[in-house]
Amino acid sequence: MAYEAISGGVTAAKGFRAAGLHCGIRGNSEKKDLALISSDVECTAAAVYTQNLVQGAPIAVTRQHLANGKARAILCNSGNANTCNADGEEKARKMCALIAKPLGVSPDDVIVASTGVIGQILPLEPIASHVDALADSLSPEGSHDAAEAIMTTDTVPKEVAVTLELGGKTVIIGGIAKGSGMIHPNMATMLSFLTTDAAISAPMLQKALNAAVAESFNMLSVDGDTSTNDMLCIMASGLAGNGEITEENDDFAAFTAALTQMCISLARIMAKDGEGATKLIECSVTGAPTVESARKIAKSVICSSLVKTAMFGEDANWGRILCAIGYAGEQINIHGVDVSICSKAGQLDVCKNGAGIPFSEEFAKVVLAESDIEVVVTLQDGESAARAFGCDLTYDYVKINGDYRT
Amino acid sequence: MAYEAISGGVTAAKGFRAAGLHCGIRGNSEKKDLALISSDVECTAAAVYTQNLVQGAPIAVTRQHLANGKARAILCNSGNANTCNADGEEKARKMCALIAKPLGVSPDDVIVASTGVIGQILPLEPIASHVDALADSLSPEGSHDAAEAIMTTDTVPKEVAVTLELGGKTVIIGGIAKGSGMIHPNMATMLSFLTTDAAISAPMLQKALNAAVAESFNMLSVDGDTSTNDMLCIMASGLAGNGEITEENDDFAAFTAALTQMCISLARIMAKDGEGATKLIECSVTGAPTVESARKIAKSVICSSLVKTAMFGEDANWGRILCAIGYAGEQINIHGVDVSICSKAGQLDVCKNGAGIPFSEEFAKVVLAESDIEVVVTLQDGESAARAFGCDLTYDYVKINGDYRT
Repeated sequence: MAYEAISGGVTAAKGFRAAGLHCGIRGNSEKKDLALISSDVECTAAAVYTQNLVQGAPIAVTRQHLANGKARAILCNSGNANTCNADGEEKARKMCALIAKPLGVSPDDVIVASTGVIGQILPLEPIASHVDALADSLSPEGSHDAAEAIMTTDTVPKEVAVTLELGGKTVIIGGIAKGSGMIHPNMATMLSFLTTDAAISAPMLQKALNAAVAESFNMLSVDGDTSTNDMLCIMASGLAGNGEITEENDDFAAFTAALTQMCISLARIMAKDGEGATKLIECSVTGAPTVESARKIAKSVICSSLVKTAMFGEDANWGRILCAIGYAGEQINIHGVDVSICSKAGQLDVCKNGAGIPFSEEFAKVVLAESDIEVVVTLQDGESAARAFGCDLTYDYVKINGDYRT
Repeated sequence: MAYEAISGGVTAAKGFRAAGLHCGIRGNSEKKDLALISSDVECTAAAVYTQNLVQGAPIAVTRQHLANGKARAILCNSGNANTCNADGEEKARKMCALIAKPLGVSPDDVIVASTGVIGQILPLEPIASHVDALADSLSPEGSHDAAEAIMTTDTVPKEVAVTLELGGKTVIIGGIAKGSGMIHPNMATMLSFLTTDAAISAPMLQKALNAAVAESFNMLSVDGDTSTNDMLCIMASGLAGNGEITEENDDFAAFTAALTQMCISLARIMAKDGEGATKLIECSVTGAPTVESARKIAKSVICSSLVKTAMFGEDANWGRILCAIGYAGEQINIHGVDVSICSKAGQLDVCKNGAGIPFSEEFAKVVLAESDIEVVVTLQDGESAARAFGCDLTYDYVKINGDYRT
């Protein structure tokens, strides 16, 4: 094992404190809605953003603030996305200025994010009246509060952290995330804030982040809708004392592998907490001609409404899996496709060489009754593999989203 | 008006008879499951098929039988898709031979189709023991029985017909269709069988059909899943007595316009009867740079799970509409987008120049309470337009598909 999971979330790494509180962005809720993550020292920083043409105002401001690869703090509200508002950028900038004062940092070093309803004017007053209290409550144990404060329809706060050795020094990477619906990242992700005490240059940090995202958040879909406010950023304090990573050496590879595994863990937690979800559905594809084709096929399966509802109904309706493979847009040999459905109860083979094979419906019920299901697709077209993360489609998804704004 | 809607469905045109009965493809149902459409004379014929890489066995056989542009009859069963079965093509060929005998036609002139569960062996015995009765019950009033016999999760049979004048002669085009889930046609469609008594050459018939499909079935989505068994075919008996259409003249244009409008009517009926749907959702896009971009944006809106659930919840959550426009993959000026939501109760303007405008939530409730909703998207990027057809996403969609196979 080159790294190990630990507790502590976004404040596990040296130099980071966090806080979360209720400021009242949404009138009718007592929920925490304002989160702050702060570094004791200047950090190198990197981020990826939504590829939606409609982008939240905070994304425009954060892009500018991260142009120099440096950051000190992250401020994020939930309950309002500050998107499609004429005054959005002005307000996002004001949020940075408001928190910069009690932190004693430059507003340009603040990363700002918002999540919630699109197209409603963001009220600044609740934020303005709470920034001092927020800064005062920063704590090395504040990860959980911050994780709670960025939640929207999430049912669980999402925190992870791992530790690894780099050049004899212990390095920590940790983070929090939110996201339950409007989850179909496209070269970016939902909201996730990561921290590390590794010493790593901004360009290398960006490169590691891109690699991690490709195998984690970009392989995740809850409902096929790419959010306008997706943002994943990472701040590196350098306090671990490792020799700074400035090129693609062994330390970079080890750091990227750990970061990737951590992002996959977060993506899994998000899929399992997808809006209304009762099951985590993973699809692994092997034997594909290219990694890109393996990714497309795996995502096609986990995005299919019919596969998702079959999983909810615990029905081994494998024809829908083959159907989704067939419309993925990849030219593979459909007569060489094997499909199995796996869970901790066992492995159920349902399709061999593109045609159905007899299986026990009783055993199928047992396999599908589990909450973590893996669809294993084996192709005969090459050596490439990929894995995608999703969830089932349930009554509660409809309920949550039929009545979200009101 | 260059054409007029009439009754009679797939047997409205001269020379066609149809029938539908229960033969027992699925053990536990009394539903009609075998349909036959027959022409008294040899017809020119054309078809489009699913672009899914996984294709039903009947599609392979029908492709071969239509290679010469001629057909006499269509045989279709519901309850079993005859797809992903090792013996699929052999059985599809057998179905053609079985019905060819009582009809006294060549098996090569039979179009065959199947719809239902994928990957279960098709039992031929129920079909073999009912082909004589089926042929005997052919009737010029048989359209409704045939429309019922091809239904799966459909809640209403789908029949349309129009009449138009070509060169002083009255021409009729009619048809039936099925489709309620796994509806996301890609250069093809679900099952639809059309007939006309127009005299038109096979190449011109194919050209007219392709044009009609581009604006109707290819702009339709219920759940984003492209079926393995999609097929739309048309048979032309020539009995109307018009001068045969063999080139792109005025008659061809008039015929294509009427055929297109009829296909749009069928697409609308299918969207409204989408699995679990309570509302028909149309999205019209104008001011787009190209027709292709208008189509992509319109489809992106009607495919969005979040737009669909908001419509089910009768919530004017227009931010989700803008979000879906934003991830459609088209480079349009997002700050020039206007959005209105319309129904027979009135027009609700919700977004102007990419930003929200104040509106009455009370009036929004009234507009959205209707069963036919149109989302009107106005861009400032050109002169092109398109329209897409979909439905809301409801508890019943989940219910129907969580328990379909069992």
